[in-house]
Amino acid sequence: MRFRMHAFAPTMHVLDSIEALRAARRALVGTVAFVPTMGYLHEGHLSLMRAGLQRCDHLIVSIYVNPTQFGPNEDLSRYPRDPQGDRLRCEREGCALLFMPSNAEMYPTGHATHVSVSGLTEGLCATSRPGHFEGVATIVTKLFNIVQPDVALFGEKDYQQLAVIRRLVRDLDLTTEIVGCPIVREDDGLAMSSRNRFLQPEDRLPARSLHAALSLAADAWAGGERDAGQLVELARTHIERHDGARVDYIECVHPENLRAHERGRLIATDEGAIMALAVFVGSTRLIDNMRLDGPTHDRPADRAQP
Amino acid sequence: MRFRMHAFAPTMHVLDSIEALRAARRALVGTVAFVPTMGYLHEGHLSLMRAGLQRCDHLIVSIYVNPTQFGPNEDLSRYPRDPQGDRLRCEREGCALLFMPSNAEMYPTGHATHVSVSGLTEGLCATSRPGHFEGVATIVTKLFNIVQPDVALFGEKDYQQLAVIRRLVRDLDLTTEIVGCPIVREDDGLAMSSRNRFLQPEDRLPARSLHAALSLAADAWAGGERDAGQLVELARTHIERHDGARVDYIECVHPENLRAHERGRLIATDEGAIMALAVFVGSTRLIDNMRLDGPTHDRPADRAQP
Repeated sequence: MRFRMHAFAPTMHVLDSIEALRAARRALVGTVAFVPTMGYLHEGHLSLMRAGLQRCDHLIVSIYVNPTQFGPNEDLSRYPRDPQGDRLRCEREGCALLFMPSNAEMYPTGHATHVSVSGLTEGLCATSRPGHFEGVATIVTKLFNIVQPDVALFGEKDYQQLAVIRRLVRDLDLTTEIVGCPIVREDDGLAMSSRNRFLQPEDRLPARSLHAALSLAADAWAGGERDAGQLVELARTHIERHDGARVDYIECVHPENLRAHERGRLIATDEGAIMALAVFVGSTRLIDNMRLDGPTHDRPADRAQP
Repeated sequence: MRFRMHAFAPTMHVLDSIEALRAARRALVGTVAFVPTMGYLHEGHLSLMRAGLQRCDHLIVSIYVNPTQFGPNEDLSRYPRDPQGDRLRCEREGCALLFMPSNAEMYPTGHATHVSVSGLTEGLCATSRPGHFEGVATIVTKLFNIVQPDVALFGEKDYQQLAVIRRLVRDLDLTTEIVGCPIVREDDGLAMSSRNRFLQPEDRLPARSLHAALSLAADAWAGGERDAGQLVELARTHIERHDGARVDYIECVHPENLRAHERGRLIATDEGAIMALAVFVGSTRLIDNMRLDGPTHDRPADRAQP
């Protein structure tokens, strides 16, 4: 299988310096899709790569566990890594350039510049992860300037991140087109995440309650419920029935500006909402979200199948 | 004279939209120098344009009085403007594209992204102009992304601004080469500035004391004085002898990181220093600076002439 892919796809180049990446990128003729990642690649990442190659002539992937988007008490040191497996996965997807820089390359001594996006970074994950989105905005700006992609692809699982990136691209007059791709889920509905590897067998049931709770809220929305407070409580009650699940936040927010819909005030149907949540399962913090305004929602395979 | 210039130089295009600027810039074959300004152009600006065209095939100038780099009590509303004269000046210098965007073009509703540079923006002008350098860093990042220049030129009069821009270009992995150009002075030593037009006849003597004070400090440096406190006091005493001059700050700082040299501690000769100062003359705030470590300094013409 690998041999056949190699016979069709040109060799992937792995680069660890900005200068080498720039030179190799300049040599690419045609359009470039970019998928920035922190590695430990799963089907969610691979779906972004495929979507990138559907749109562009070439694919560039970066693997960089960006320290500035982790808080001091977060899981930077134990963030999962699999550089050998990731190289293989990227190569199989037809990636042209894989960028794997070091911290010294990305943040040399004296680095002092930060990109911040106000408004969008004031609720949801920003509350329990102060500084996280400034780290994301800064590294994404840097990577875009290095890679100069025509298109960059991000998963909708990190919905707030996607909104922040769309905003900064517009505000800083970058020309990269931002494409959000649907959440890829396990068969039981659990959103794919590199952090899922931390889940113990006993965590699985509470972990899948996230998606089940979102689906319950989406069903209630489809049934006419427009009270953000009711929708949130429905989801919260479902998750909190599971031992080992501790809700960090559950919010109904406006799909673009991410402002929380006030509880007790009815959400306008045409405005719609995203229900977003973060839940600690054991020591692992999982996030997920679902759009409430569409007639159909993605469902766990075990519910969608007859 | 104008006719002859026109006969040799191609027509300058004046553009007010980002999209039009991008399209016109893409059509330029060869290298591009960029001089971002707030207009009311003087010989200092023109020297940047000439330096740009010595280095590159084409010159792009922007004129935009960026509101985000003015504090609430500053002189945004009365900042001097001369769009017709400026167009003529740019055309005479051989400018290919003149970008004159509106506020709505640069900061459309919803704009929420800011670029900040820590460290360099904590003393000197940042103290009395909080938020100023974040405004500068953000607009320069935007303009660089729009113009995509090979080289950008800035005056050394705004020494702290130049250091901030060098830092952000390095940190955000922009590829534009930053060139600092020497301060251009009036015959009496006063550094050229658009704000000089606010000076009343009685302000002229206190205004020229800035450069005279820097020259005194440079002479003392050349004579072996290495105590930052002594150098600063020398300059301060000279300026404060003039009625109508009110010192905002006078500092001896490290030429790269802009950290203030501690008073009482001797400055290492090989480290050198910049003496930077800001002085209110009447209601006008003037800035100036001089490098203390070179064997020669620029001098007022009236002192250099026999």
